[in-house]
Amino acid sequence: MDIYTKLNTLGITIPPPITRPKEWKLEPYVIHKNFLFLAGHGPRRDDKVIYTGRLGENLDIDVGKKAAKLCVLNLLSSAQLALKDLNRVNKIIKLFGMVRCVQDFHYQPEVIDGASELLIEIFGDRGKHARTAVGMYDLPRGIAVEIEMILAFD
Amino acid sequence: MDIYTKLNTLGITIPPPITRPKEWKLEPYVIHKNFLFLAGHGPRRDDKVIYTGRLGENLDIDVGKKAAKLCVLNLLSSAQLALKDLNRVNKIIKLFGMVRCVQDFHYQPEVIDGASELLIEIFGDRGKHARTAVGMYDLPRGIAVEIEMILAFD
Amino acid sequence: MDIYTKLNTLGITIPPPITRPKEWKLEPYVIHKNFLFLAGHGPRRDDKVIYTGRLGENLDIDVGKKAAKLCVLNLLSSAQLALKDLNRVNKIIKLFGMVRCVQDFHYQPEVIDGASELLIEIFGDRGKHARTAVGMYDLPRGIAVEIEMILAFD
Repeated sequence: MDIYTKLNTLGITIPPPITRPKEWKLEPYVIHKNFLFLAGHGPRRDDKVIYTGRLGENLDIDVGKKAAKLCVLNLLSSAQLALKDLNRVNKIIKLFGMVRCVQDFHYQPEVIDGASELLIEIFGDRGKHARTAVGMYDLPRGIAVEIEMILAFD
Repeated sequence: MDIYTKLNTLGITIPPPITRPKEWKLEPYVIHKNFLFLAGHGPRRDDKVIYTGRLGENLDIDVGKKAAKLCVLNLLSSAQLALKDLNRVNKIIKLFGMVRCVQDFHYQPEVIDGASELLIEIFGDRGKHARTAVGMYDLPRGIAVEIEMILAFD
Repeated sequence: MDIYTKLNTLGITIPPPITRPKEWKLEPYVIHKNFLFLAGHGPRRDDKVIYTGRLGENLDIDVGKKAAKLCVLNLLSSAQLALKDLNRVNKIIKLFGMVRCVQDFHYQPEVIDGASELLIEIFGDRGKHARTAVGMYDLPRGIAVEIEMILAFD
């Protein structure tokens, strides 16, 4: 099924590319061969960071999952910018999911499931991926979740 | 030398694939081109997590090395599931070794050496790899070590 | 422009390869296809670790940026060892920048900008890369910054 029809059916809108301040040194993605390497993306919306804090302190797993989903929407926004058409996504290869949390939180996989579920919902078998989910001491601007992704495209 | 003869000589048994609970969203690996991307694997045995805690607190380097070795056995179990035959492993490319530890532990390389030594023992020059070994604030279920691996195969 | 002429103009000297103690198990890099995977490199000079501590504690952003620049020089030293000639670098693909810091530091991107700026200064558009910058709980030997890099070469 066409990915945009699928997104429409699911009621999902890919956000526009974030406005990148001129002083940002990094690129949102780099293409090499048919690999798309995406930078770590956080839970931003309308150019504002919206989930800050620590899992197990001021945020619970459900909120963490929402933050992880928002990271995926931003990753897909950058992927669309890179590929022009998300139907070219051939396989989600790998996520590195980072959760800002208290020291004995232990539920990073449940938080990053928010990202994995959304990718599988959108891309089906092509969305199934290898993954690492870990607890970070700090993340930029105090965001609660950040996700890095590698995918293959045609 | 045939890898299975080598494993036999070394007295090493590759564990069976872990039983993956139905609710797990991640895949143990993804293949793209002749790269095998493996998910972060922890120190599980018989479907139980067996090294939990923090290096420098309740665990010392020797125990950490054992945990790292067990991560490698689990990674190789998934690699065997992916490739059917570990003789197809052409090169271990990269490990990302994560050690749950106290803040001033500083000996992550010594812990992850447990993984590196085992890979070189099994695969010889093909087992030599680039590596990053870092201190994590928390890991899923409180495991002491987790390792992510990329390898090349024929 | 020839990279060595450029380095000369910029007054930058690529340090000699670090002396690797015999007990080190890791390789500084692995090549597969035309990808160069570099191990995590720290802020070493003349075989000594020179930036230790925590950002937001005993180190400020300016010092952190210097540490990040030194990591890049060491990464390029290993890249030169791998490729013989840095003119073969086709594209810096991805940095994973790790900053040892206090828990509410939040300025990892500013620190890792020290690495990104240097790569862009040296390689121009080929130096622009995807990036993740995070706050680590601990790093080997208490170094303040460590960077892992993937690049493409011809």
